[in-house]
Amino acid sequence: MTETALVLFSGGQDSATCLAWALHHYDHVETIGFAYRQRHAIELECRIPVRDALARIGGWRGTLGADHIVDLGSSLSAIGQTALTEDVLIAMNGDDLPNTFVPGRNLLFLTYAAAVAYRRGLKRIIGGMCETDFSGYPDCRDDTIKAMQLALNLGMNQRFVLETPLMWIDKAQTWAMALGLGGQPLIDAIIEETHTCYLGDRTTRHAWGYGCSTCPACELRANGWRKWQSTL
Amino acid sequence: MTETALVLFSGGQDSATCLAWALHHYDHVETIGFAYRQRHAIELECRIPVRDALARIGGWRGTLGADHIVDLGSSLSAIGQTALTEDVLIAMNGDDLPNTFVPGRNLLFLTYAAAVAYRRGLKRIIGGMCETDFSGYPDCRDDTIKAMQLALNLGMNQRFVLETPLMWIDKAQTWAMALGLGGQPLIDAIIEETHTCYLGDRTTRHAWGYGCSTCPACELRANGWRKWQSTL
Repeated sequence: MTETALVLFSGGQDSATCLAWALHHYDHVETIGFAYRQRHAIELECRIPVRDALARIGGWRGTLGADHIVDLGSSLSAIGQTALTEDVLIAMNGDDLPNTFVPGRNLLFLTYAAAVAYRRGLKRIIGGMCETDFSGYPDCRDDTIKAMQLALNLGMNQRFVLETPLMWIDKAQTWAMALGLGGQPLIDAIIEETHTCYLGDRTTRHAWGYGCSTCPACELRANGWRKWQSTL
Repeated sequence: MTETALVLFSGGQDSATCLAWALHHYDHVETIGFAYRQRHAIELECRIPVRDALARIGGWRGTLGADHIVDLGSSLSAIGQTALTEDVLIAMNGDDLPNTFVPGRNLLFLTYAAAVAYRRGLKRIIGGMCETDFSGYPDCRDDTIKAMQLALNLGMNQRFVLETPLMWIDKAQTWAMALGLGGQPLIDAIIEETHTCYLGDRTTRHAWGYGCSTCPACELRANGWRKWQSTL
């Protein structure tokens, strides 16, 4: 039986590693991305070169199939601007989340992905959610993903499998996983082609890739790189 | 404590009855609708007159608050056009669903609704899902809704309650429920202001409201009306 998968693929380090993981494990792999007027829209532009770079590496079990972009229009930004009531403001401050936070964003992405997987006949849905680095986001938690699998399968009368290969590893281990999956060519592709920086900096090159090096996403990536390097 | 609710409100008979049900039971009720380039977009236009008509009836426990429209852009129609694989075609034919079917549409609506409810501090999310008339749609089933409550609460770290007052009743009983909630004025408002017809017919008036009377939605509404009338 042909094993098929759909990877939630933003073009960043984590989802590139997930795509490599899927190409290593399954026969036919498609990708899905979401346009939602994000600040770092440069990430969306990086998707194609990252896909191309991974395909060039070769030696995968799987072949890389179609890429799907779902345009969410203004829906996420509109919710992000929806006025907060006083009740909620208190809860939000407790959670230390930004005011434009769209709760459950990953639930939306997973539901759209399942709809595409349904129509494309794909069995596995793979995402880079991770408890280790993003424990503040409840929609990245393992319990949430497992509850979503249940809801999606009941709601679509299917047997999808949601897989999150990065759930229990940190950023250093994500680099190590990439080396194991695709060797130095995959590490090079991730450094050169994937994007992380919140500010969209694609000009300043570091050992770990491009970025401003001071935003939270760059810090996380750089720290993971240094920790990984120290273990080699 | 002020009891708050958000009603998935399309402007049709079912969601108008749900809105009346929410106004009867809770103190503060807001509504949410979705623009997704639907064929019967006239339903969206009916939403405001239906809200106004229900507010005019008066005597409710609750006050009618904000209306939220989430514009899903092209996302649903794009998924509806996504090519079907052979595997899926077989499953779809088995399910007797149209080729442009967007699986899990109600899961998306519920997730968007929960995101808005989160930001507005609303506790209960009310939808007109019903197993009785739409058993072909797995995203309307009670098991699905209960699994979604679990997934949404885990994914947003909240305690939302999803309520589906029409889950176990048929269209005749929905008319009876409306009479119980708002008397003849509510029945009149539903007849005059709500929309059902798939073809968007708003000119041909029947005892049960406007519509072509032959599309599946009109048939369902007319049959429910006749069955209800026969019990009075």
